[in-house]
Amino acid sequence: METRNLIGYNYQPELGNKFKAVDPSLGTDLPGEFYAASISEANAAMELADKAFATYRNISGEKKAAFLRSIAEEIIAIGPPLIERAMLESGLPDTRLQGERGRTTNQLKMFADLLDEGSWVEAIIDTAIPDRQPLPRIDIRKMMVPLGPCVVFGASNFPMAFSVAGGDTAAALAAGCPVIVKAHPAHPGTSALVAEAIKKAAEKTGMPEGVFSILYDDGYAIGEALVKHPKTKIVTFTGSFKGGMALVKMARERYEPIPVFAEMGSTNPIIFLPKALENRAEDLAKLSASITANAGQFCTQPGLLIAIKSDALDRFKNALAIAIADVNSATMLTPGICANFNKLSGGIIADDSVSIIAQSDKIDNSKINQGVAVVTEITAAAFLADEKFKEEVFGPYSMLVVADDVAQMEQVVDSLHGQLTATIMTESDELANYKSITDKLVNLAGRVILNGPPTGVEVGNAIQHGGPFPSTSDSRFTSVGISSIKRFVRPVAWQNWNEELLPDELKTGNPLNIWRLFNNEWKK
Amino acid sequence: METRNLIGYNYQPELGNKFKAVDPSLGTDLPGEFYAASISEANAAMELADKAFATYRNISGEKKAAFLRSIAEEIIAIGPPLIERAMLESGLPDTRLQGERGRTTNQLKMFADLLDEGSWVEAIIDTAIPDRQPLPRIDIRKMMVPLGPCVVFGASNFPMAFSVAGGDTAAALAAGCPVIVKAHPAHPGTSALVAEAIKKAAEKTGMPEGVFSILYDDGYAIGEALVKHPKTKIVTFTGSFKGGMALVKMARERYEPIPVFAEMGSTNPIIFLPKALENRAEDLAKLSASITANAGQFCTQPGLLIAIKSDALDRFKNALAIAIADVNSATMLTPGICANFNKLSGGIIADDSVSIIAQSDKIDNSKINQGVAVVTEITAAAFLADEKFKEEVFGPYSMLVVADDVAQMEQVVDSLHGQLTATIMTESDELANYKSITDKLVNLAGRVILNGPPTGVEVGNAIQHGGPFPSTSDSRFTSVGISSIKRFVRPVAWQNWNEELLPDELKTGNPLNIWRLFNNEWKK
Repeated sequence: METRNLIGYNYQPELGNKFKAVDPSLGTDLPGEFYAASISEANAAMELADKAFATYRNISGEKKAAFLRSIAEEIIAIGPPLIERAMLESGLPDTRLQGERGRTTNQLKMFADLLDEGSWVEAIIDTAIPDRQPLPRIDIRKMMVPLGPCVVFGASNFPMAFSVAGGDTAAALAAGCPVIVKAHPAHPGTSALVAEAIKKAAEKTGMPEGVFSILYDDGYAIGEALVKHPKTKIVTFTGSFKGGMALVKMARERYEPIPVFAEMGSTNPIIFLPKALENRAEDLAKLSASITANAGQFCTQPGLLIAIKSDALDRFKNALAIAIADVNSATMLTPGICANFNKLSGGIIADDSVSIIAQSDKIDNSKINQGVAVVTEITAAAFLADEKFKEEVFGPYSMLVVADDVAQMEQVVDSLHGQLTATIMTESDELANYKSITDKLVNLAGRVILNGPPTGVEVGNAIQHGGPFPSTSDSRFTSVGISSIKRFVRPVAWQNWNEELLPDELKTGNPLNIWRLFNNEWKK
Repeated sequence: METRNLIGYNYQPELGNKFKAVDPSLGTDLPGEFYAASISEANAAMELADKAFATYRNISGEKKAAFLRSIAEEIIAIGPPLIERAMLESGLPDTRLQGERGRTTNQLKMFADLLDEGSWVEAIIDTAIPDRQPLPRIDIRKMMVPLGPCVVFGASNFPMAFSVAGGDTAAALAAGCPVIVKAHPAHPGTSALVAEAIKKAAEKTGMPEGVFSILYDDGYAIGEALVKHPKTKIVTFTGSFKGGMALVKMARERYEPIPVFAEMGSTNPIIFLPKALENRAEDLAKLSASITANAGQFCTQPGLLIAIKSDALDRFKNALAIAIADVNSATMLTPGICANFNKLSGGIIADDSVSIIAQSDKIDNSKINQGVAVVTEITAAAFLADEKFKEEVFGPYSMLVVADDVAQMEQVVDSLHGQLTATIMTESDELANYKSITDKLVNLAGRVILNGPPTGVEVGNAIQHGGPFPSTSDSRFTSVGISSIKRFVRPVAWQNWNEELLPDELKTGNPLNIWRLFNNEWKK
């Protein structure tokens, strides 16, 4: 494993502060030494990325697709060592990481397919109308072009799918933007292995040097230098509200405004309607899996359950208590995340208005940093009285908010801040009576779910992973699925241009056979 | 004319500081007294806009279209008084304002047509695949929904088309976002007339109160209060770099990040290639019209001409000198704009490295605030040595930068900041030799033009009016044309939803008959 900072095709001398990865389940150091990058290395990586951009932005979709597919192949070629290292660094189980690797390589291939198909550039063509009155219409043709170098911050909770070659990197590279990854210090070894795969793929497919670099740092200096660099055009991040807003603040100190896509905290409320509880309280308690899977360390983990008091709700609580009691403790991603989980959940539990309704009693004492599942309960009145209950508790935790009636339930919904997801559990014949609540959920969240868990984010065309603030810094974009490529592009119009000098996407004969809005008509 | 602040359907008491509109050609006060709104009025307008949003965002496209068409009708119904008032307040000529009124009403109708057609919501549908391996695919359907209340700052240079019922307002209302206009103090009477038209249209078509409000202020306090209000979700602005960046800065002081679309300064460079000059130097000098029309007060006015020294360039300069000498002086929009024009152009002319190559001698001394056309010349070496020459001089001014050779011309292009437009004047058979420059222009600007003036912005499907910083604060969007509606929306995904409760745009049967990406296939 090559652990040094990588700028373009060159691994850098071992200069900066040394740090090691930690096995969170034991607290022991893992093999391999990493070196915090220097500011001059950050600047050099960005200068090289900017230079690469001049070439890379004009590379054909076909060649970029080959690059992405080659990255996927190189990741697979790492074999078991990648999964093993990711397990050691993240505490996540084998099957989960096997699945995550599949998701990562599938994302790369999905963007390759998108490039091959080609319509993603949103070509719009208005041809000339020389005899239009009072003025002739001039030929104008528009399509998306890449914005420029992108800084990707690896996320702690998806060491592959939201990290070095994750969705952000895949989408940025597909769009034509060079990427500098700031590796997450919780999984530098996993990062190093994947970075090497990208380097190999870039070299094999003849990409310009600087299309990808990776820098390590166990502090904040390198991230800050990259976000503030004048040549940086986009920043992507998945993590905590605090971390995301720190990047937003750094970007606000720039002269040039740039997009910062920070996917931050979300409590992903689930509304339980009365009939659903009445008919299937026990079945709904199976949500325990969504609350606790992988120690609840998902952006879309349901941290807030909202219902009206009833006998059926008591049945749900009983069933949930039984299910949660049976959930094994699990190693959390980092000691810091575990400490924060215990601090936040502990603080809430200590509040007089809060009671515990479900708690795991299966704690693995042979390991440390164990996330132990717990569900609390609070009245809607108490919930509404203190903002602290709305804060995300990242981990295997959820809070049941019990309203006296529909009006109070609606008040709770009104009080919520922006969310990645909002879910409603209902019977078909009662939903029409709650149109006001449904409508509010659409305004509250990026994805509204009926009768299903919010976890398990589909990577496809229609997915929206991003919601109103503070769940993300920019609700207009998704960080998952094909539409996530839109974060990295801007439109350019060619006016009165020579046919032979237009990009292929805009040539009248449509040589790439893509969908276009051609004189107000969608066609190929 | 009702000159008071309008919140929803209610004109407000006359409370704030009084101010009057000024005829810039004479410096005299115009009839009508306006009252600077108070902070509490700004808050009340935004609270009402937010309340209206809850209703307005669910109104059908058909009803919003009727509202927009009604606004267009009410504007036309004002008749000659609108044009007369706009002439007095802006100093712009009758024909120009007639045209601008047509553009304004056409924009409103264009968005109404867009709503009727319906495909603008970008519906994407992935239906369920229950037997997919390893996991079933859940039904997910996505479309655009409105972001929330928008603050529109009226622009000085288009008192109708970029003001109260201009492109920003039309697009925001079409998207489903309520609008609060901060009227431009240079044309409050024109603003008041158009605001009344919108009020009538909203009442006639049964829109929720608060879908539109207008506030006056001859200072900055109301603009600041509106930008910083927590319920504000979007800000649009067209004007100076200084003004735009002041709004960006205000928005940066918010807790919640929101999009600020500021269309700011641009020098709209024109590159003249050698053969084009050789073959048609005199014809190219007709660009004098684009430099000087309406006292050069266009966002896309060409303020920078770049060429390589040659005998043909001397012919161009001579022809330009003759054309510019013949251009009548014209009243500038405000005394402040005229003073700034004289200060900036005067400062440049006073520089030792700058000479005047063309100047109007037709000055109307019966009027004040006259913009007098002038074109300067500088060597590429001197231009490259001082950033001040890159600043936009808003008015009938342009600077010719003369390079020694192609390499130096390319250096000049490399040195430029982001632009709304970049133009290349060329003969077909030479363009292929300048691929490097052409390519740079695509990275530099939002619209690249071949052999034509950058002024005269087509309002259509393919137009892009917005470019890299500092020409706009967000190059990813356009403020002109149908795509400008994208500034006001975000995607929401409905997952596993009941068919009958889905928005019509997402129902399987496609009752609105719109274009959708349905299971990876574009179809109606």
